[in-house]
Amino acid sequence: MIEEDPVAEREEARVAGPADQGVTGVPVELARARVTIDNIDAALIHILAERFRCTQRVGHIKARLNLPPADPAREARQVERLRALAVSSGLDPDFAEKFLGFMVREVIRHHEDIKAEYDGGASL
Amino acid sequence: MIEEDPVAEREEARVAGPADQGVTGVPVELARARVTIDNIDAALIHILAERFRCTQRVGHIKARLNLPPADPAREARQVERLRALAVSSGLDPDFAEKFLGFMVREVIRHHEDIKAEYDGGASL
Repeated sequence: MIEEDPVAEREEARVAGPADQGVTGVPVELARARVTIDNIDAALIHILAERFRCTQRVGHIKARLNLPPADPAREARQVERLRALAVSSGLDPDFAEKFLGFMVREVIRHHEDIKAEYDGGASL
Repeated sequence: MIEEDPVAEREEARVAGPADQGVTGVPVELARARVTIDNIDAALIHILAERFRCTQRVGHIKARLNLPPADPAREARQVERLRALAVSSGLDPDFAEKFLGFMVREVIRHHEDIKAEYDGGASL
């Protein structure tokens, strides 16, 4: 039986990211980078949760004011702004645009669901 | 000519989000929600920029250590963790999983590019 190295084991445990707890055999420099990625991902999930709380509110406002779920002019302004923010922060602007599209598709789906609820309610 | 209402105009300007500067005719409660969305989006872009800085570093580590660009076991752990974080923060866990997949596809593409650079360099 091969003796395990308790120092290396402790070092691995110390640098294991939140998603890699108990996982062994990851090179230390890779494990260190993954700690950062896991922390960043937790931040992203929580910020996305808050964004959808806000867009749900927007869905209700739009349904109540009878505004369409999608707003292409607003979306075009968002694309332009996010591409500029991406360039200034070192992110690929094409990825930023795809990311906005990814979120907006989900949001519009929610808005349509909310509008359908309102329309259904009005016909009762 | 219809007189514009300077008070309503000032109120509109005051609540216009970063992506909606100079845009008029947006109901005030919608404009207020959009300020939050625009602030959240700027945060998301900057955090994503930092995540890709980190995954670029991972790409170089993997290429140097001759590790494969994709790591399905790690990805499965990330999915499980992010779904749990989504539930606890009120985000749709299916959306969280799709979001991770969206980022990971981009990251793997970058890792493959980095690996190709290293492989090309080695053959010189």
